[in-house]
Amino acid sequence: MNFHTRKWVKPEDLNANGTLFGGALLRWVDEEAAIYAILQMGNHRAVTKMMSEINFVASAVQGDMIEMGLKAIHFGRTSMTMRAVVRNMITRKVILSIDKIVFVSLGEDGTPQPHGYTDISYNRDRLPTR
Amino acid sequence: MNFHTRKWVKPEDLNANGTLFGGALLRWVDEEAAIYAILQMGNHRAVTKMMSEINFVASAVQGDMIEMGLKAIHFGRTSMTMRAVVRNMITRKVILSIDKIVFVSLGEDGTPQPHGYTDISYNRDRLPTR
Amino acid sequence: MNFHTRKWVKPEDLNANGTLFGGALLRWVDEEAAIYAILQMGNHRAVTKMMSEINFVASAVQGDMIEMGLKAIHFGRTSMTMRAVVRNMITRKVILSIDKIVFVSLGEDGTPQPHGYTDISYNRDRLPTR
Amino acid sequence: MNFHTRKWVKPEDLNANGTLFGGALLRWVDEEAAIYAILQMGNHRAVTKMMSEINFVASAVQGDMIEMGLKAIHFGRTSMTMRAVVRNMITRKVILSIDKIVFVSLGEDGTPQPHGYTDISYNRDRLPTR
Amino acid sequence: MNFHTRKWVKPEDLNANGTLFGGALLRWVDEEAAIYAILQMGNHRAVTKMMSEINFVASAVQGDMIEMGLKAIHFGRTSMTMRAVVRNMITRKVILSIDKIVFVSLGEDGTPQPHGYTDISYNRDRLPTR
Amino acid sequence: MNFHTRKWVKPEDLNANGTLFGGALLRWVDEEAAIYAILQMGNHRAVTKMMSEINFVASAVQGDMIEMGLKAIHFGRTSMTMRAVVRNMITRKVILSIDKIVFVSLGEDGTPQPHGYTDISYNRDRLPTR
Repeated sequence: MNFHTRKWVKPEDLNANGTLFGGALLRWVDEEAAIYAILQMGNHRAVTKMMSEINFVASAVQGDMIEMGLKAIHFGRTSMTMRAVVRNMITRKVILSIDKIVFVSLGEDGTPQPHGYTDISYNRDRLPTR
Repeated sequence: MNFHTRKWVKPEDLNANGTLFGGALLRWVDEEAAIYAILQMGNHRAVTKMMSEINFVASAVQGDMIEMGLKAIHFGRTSMTMRAVVRNMITRKVILSIDKIVFVSLGEDGTPQPHGYTDISYNRDRLPTR
Repeated sequence: MNFHTRKWVKPEDLNANGTLFGGALLRWVDEEAAIYAILQMGNHRAVTKMMSEINFVASAVQGDMIEMGLKAIHFGRTSMTMRAVVRNMITRKVILSIDKIVFVSLGEDGTPQPHGYTDISYNRDRLPTR
Repeated sequence: MNFHTRKWVKPEDLNANGTLFGGALLRWVDEEAAIYAILQMGNHRAVTKMMSEINFVASAVQGDMIEMGLKAIHFGRTSMTMRAVVRNMITRKVILSIDKIVFVSLGEDGTPQPHGYTDISYNRDRLPTR
Repeated sequence: MNFHTRKWVKPEDLNANGTLFGGALLRWVDEEAAIYAILQMGNHRAVTKMMSEINFVASAVQGDMIEMGLKAIHFGRTSMTMRAVVRNMITRKVILSIDKIVFVSLGEDGTPQPHGYTDISYNRDRLPTR
Repeated sequence: MNFHTRKWVKPEDLNANGTLFGGALLRWVDEEAAIYAILQMGNHRAVTKMMSEINFVASAVQGDMIEMGLKAIHFGRTSMTMRAVVRNMITRKVILSIDKIVFVSLGEDGTPQPHGYTDISYNRDRLPTR
């Protein structure tokens, strides 16, 4: 699993109890997953279809630095499934884990469209330049 | 199930494809669930512990008005479980559903603390005023 | 008066003195009022025309849970008027009250357009689905 | 009346109809008024007490540049009253006007505290440096 | 140099150490500079091309009131250069200074376009009304 | 140079011309640089001291995916210097480059404090866990 995007927990990310707001965390995970899905399926029209059980294993506090990791675990005909982990950058302690996040590739008409891929790309060369 | 908080989908809530950003939706759900859990468990120190499978049934676009509904379905000794639905206010079409969201009641030391409730309150009288 | 949208006061909503920022509160009220006006006048092109005197009766602090209530009090030919209250969910103490918020229904050309309604709808069936 | 703070209307400031969101406008006005009140009353603990009728005279669209003007019109024993106008920087057309915004000076105990001023300062020298 | 836009440092503007987040400061400066450049070059399509060395001379904390100053120092054929200072409104102590911010005027095709001006306007009359 | 944090350009990140707002970009760079500096200097109290000339080489539009790269190029006694590049993830075209970003390590009293490091860490083991 590769970890890319990093966040520094600031006051704007806290809930009313002063710990990292779970909703802020889910927002970050969903953006990271969308970027990953777009690259892997070679299609900008990738939408979140399902997230399996989400476990909030530990919390984070102001000043913590966290990082998000994703790994594709399955390619369907019009979809792909990935696993996600968010962890503390220093202690490597897991903050949140999601076994399956499913994204679907859509055509211009908004219906599922085959993406034609069956494995992970490490080259980022699937998307045409504009 | 009672529906309370409403949102009007504005440009700031959209993803790069121009539809409602899934991460924004999860952020709203988590705040609504936290408020509900605090009221039901009578404790401000309520934290998200788990969300079961999340189904993104339909999307929403700029200008849509949506509403969030929650219902407590189980009270444990230190936790409670609720069901969540987000739907379009006009068409009542479901946008997102989550079968189980579990919140835990924490004591001042940050460990789970019994909340002493076994059923839903409709009176909001569980929290002491400051 | 029905209370719908709820907010949990988080660090991002505070002013530099650490109490709820009045501007954040007005932002929430205006969104809630827009949703209500759109439903009552059956027109997405509803714009805020006037707010009467706003009384900031009490403040709120981090962790407070507040709710917004609205009630239509008058229907004009192209406009409608509502009353707004924001209160603490637990103590029911009023935080802010506005006697009159006027929204106008606009046609596609941006000029006021008769909406044809004279009383409150409880069915949300005024807007055509897309 | 002096105009200070300027805003460039960006997508994040729009409502679902694509025009400047009234709530965003009120948020800007309240912050500008707080700064003005703090300077004039020489006290960081200045809170919004009342806003008189707000007239949304015209709207603004993405790309418009707007500016906010304030002028103190009355000094009470523990409060001050100002007038506010928001206008388009190029056309100078008024977008919003508020006849009276009242701020109150509070003491450390949170109750109104006399500020000792009776007229407008142009020197900004009322606040002690930290 | 004229100082226009003012900010009141709120919790949402702080970094994880509780002082003003440098990134928030740069965001404010860039918006203020864009407005200034649009007015001076008489063209809405003005984009940031370069910023010279940025010196973070001092920090700011929650509750500080700051103001941004800009002054055009050079007009090129398709660009203009300005100097920027951000300072504490009360102490007038400099927080950040940038010797040169260059904006370029673009045509509808996105390439640099001569703006035809050689000196500062104080009249804001360069932009056609819509 | 390693690229970590990724962003998907959404409507909330655009300026009034519909391209990526330079201020949003600088905000992202500053947060990424702060995380990198904290890890390298082994001190949470790391503050931005200086940024050298910033070149906005190209723009980005809604839907673009961008990534930020940083590399430490010099360690001083109480500071460190890094180079930054932001580029399009697909085309690898540079969007922004900054030759030098200097962060300073501060002690509890807010004055510069020697950090004791002279080269880049790849182990993230410099910070004590809490």
